[in-house]
Amino acid sequence: MLEQAQRAMNDKTKPPGSLGRIEALGVQLACVQRTLAPAIRRARVAVFAGDHGVTEEGVSAYPARVTVEMMRNFARGGAAINVIGRANDVEIEVIDVGVAGELDGLPNVVHANVRRGTRNFAREPALTPAEVDAALEVGRAAARRAADAGVDALGLGEMGIGNTTAAAALLSALTGEAPSETVGRGTGIDDVGLARKRATVKTALARHTAALATPAAALAAVGGLEIAAIAGAALAAPEHGIVVVADGFISTVGILAAHRLNPAIRDALVFSHRSAERGHALALRALDACPLLDLDLRLGEGTGAALAMPFLRAAAAVMREMATFAEAGVSQSA
Amino acid sequence: MLEQAQRAMNDKTKPPGSLGRIEALGVQLACVQRTLAPAIRRARVAVFAGDHGVTEEGVSAYPARVTVEMMRNFARGGAAINVIGRANDVEIEVIDVGVAGELDGLPNVVHANVRRGTRNFAREPALTPAEVDAALEVGRAAARRAADAGVDALGLGEMGIGNTTAAAALLSALTGEAPSETVGRGTGIDDVGLARKRATVKTALARHTAALATPAAALAAVGGLEIAAIAGAALAAPEHGIVVVADGFISTVGILAAHRLNPAIRDALVFSHRSAERGHALALRALDACPLLDLDLRLGEGTGAALAMPFLRAAAAVMREMATFAEAGVSQSA
Repeated sequence: MLEQAQRAMNDKTKPPGSLGRIEALGVQLACVQRTLAPAIRRARVAVFAGDHGVTEEGVSAYPARVTVEMMRNFARGGAAINVIGRANDVEIEVIDVGVAGELDGLPNVVHANVRRGTRNFAREPALTPAEVDAALEVGRAAARRAADAGVDALGLGEMGIGNTTAAAALLSALTGEAPSETVGRGTGIDDVGLARKRATVKTALARHTAALATPAAALAAVGGLEIAAIAGAALAAPEHGIVVVADGFISTVGILAAHRLNPAIRDALVFSHRSAERGHALALRALDACPLLDLDLRLGEGTGAALAMPFLRAAAAVMREMATFAEAGVSQSA
Repeated sequence: MLEQAQRAMNDKTKPPGSLGRIEALGVQLACVQRTLAPAIRRARVAVFAGDHGVTEEGVSAYPARVTVEMMRNFARGGAAINVIGRANDVEIEVIDVGVAGELDGLPNVVHANVRRGTRNFAREPALTPAEVDAALEVGRAAARRAADAGVDALGLGEMGIGNTTAAAALLSALTGEAPSETVGRGTGIDDVGLARKRATVKTALARHTAALATPAAALAAVGGLEIAAIAGAALAAPEHGIVVVADGFISTVGILAAHRLNPAIRDALVFSHRSAERGHALALRALDACPLLDLDLRLGEGTGAALAMPFLRAAAAVMREMATFAEAGVSQSA
């Protein structure tokens, strides 16, 4: 399929390679969809939300209640991901997989709460193995809903105060990199907070060493419910022929965990952007990934994935609709 | 306006600056449209087409007849710009300002031919001053049509075999940079052709030295009809409150010529992408521009501008629609 798709792309009325990364993306979409006429009929970003017990250690610039407040903002359509989604024809699905507060059946939210926030991994494992399994299943269910709705590209976003701390710890656990490399400023913590965040992750990794042997065990020890759900969605979406679109740091770490569980998903992964968050470059390197965009984003919510969806649409259309030299009667180069 | 817009952007429910370049773009759109609720109602790419007498010197990988062939491809909707435009809801307007062949009233094309291709600037001036004026006016007319149609963002694209040669010569004339820096491979000429292309530009610049004193004179000596039209559109669009979206090398050089004629247009310019064509980095530097995308594109036609339009839509929407911390009842950082 790859060779056939590449040949078809070269026959289009343009100097070979002149559409750069759009060409490679079109070829990838052809391979994932197993057709020379790929299409992004519907694009969706799933926003998995969860809270983190580790916020007790003072690792975030924002109070933990912001996760609940932002859920209400998502539900009303006022957050960045809502606005960007509406602007670019990308559906948003917000999923409570682990928010700590009461959401009272908030509308426009999929209620799939596994647990009201993780435990504080500075002191004990964040999740039980059963909770990790349940969160993975919440992600798999989101992929199934997307497949049922005819979604062809699924962005994986998140919301959760404290989740750059969990993602950094998980990235260290998965790659062996030191917290000094994986921990960054998140939503904007100051120097004192950053030092505290690094020390917290370092101590936690030392405490949980024995429990970090497998990706699933690492998810339980230092992960997050939304991070596990992202991993679940990344594992399941490719089974349905859906392209997975990574967002920023947390999203990419969740996808890295999924990749460690099943490397075969790699061909279905598209990386939307390079985040300004410190650990993202490392997570991308671990996946041998070069993102499409570099816009200095560090918001999360799936905003980078939503911004990249038009490229997927364009790349599929180039593959599907562009005339060949023969069809158009255009002369080729000498 | 700038300060007011920046303050409004900082009040949105996100860590300040976390939407990176999307924030700056939203602020820019607010300033151009003079409202805190900017919108991209319609996005359009104008594709100006023209031929080049200098192709007689063997400077292109493709025969000159390809310009006419591609006009038919555009008219039928089979070219990259058509396909990407349809995929991303960007209108395309193709304008014959200087195609050398017979188009027989081809539909879906604005017929505004000033001259059937430029003269060979290796031997004589490419255009007369009157022809340059006429081509500038073709561009201005395109900006007026866009304004009348409610277009808020106008991408400036081009088609014309040989036009990287003209753009390189013009860029050298405008900046004083040597042809070794401004001349690249265009659609993909080989090493021998590249050496010939550089020598051609070098000789032409030496021949026309006396005629390169002003931007308009340089456009006449070594420019192109589509390049002058791009300059005209870039001069006129901002007068209508329309944001100008630069495409790649040729588009940016046309816009640079416009900027030399009227530096006040700078605030209304958005740079879509960094082209793989050698001289583009130089042209961008001359405009102190940092493009949004880096996708290794080198096709032209306005494809990069069309790919960037969703960012303008998203940035305007973020400025216009995102909730503030106060509106959403979301806590701010400590």
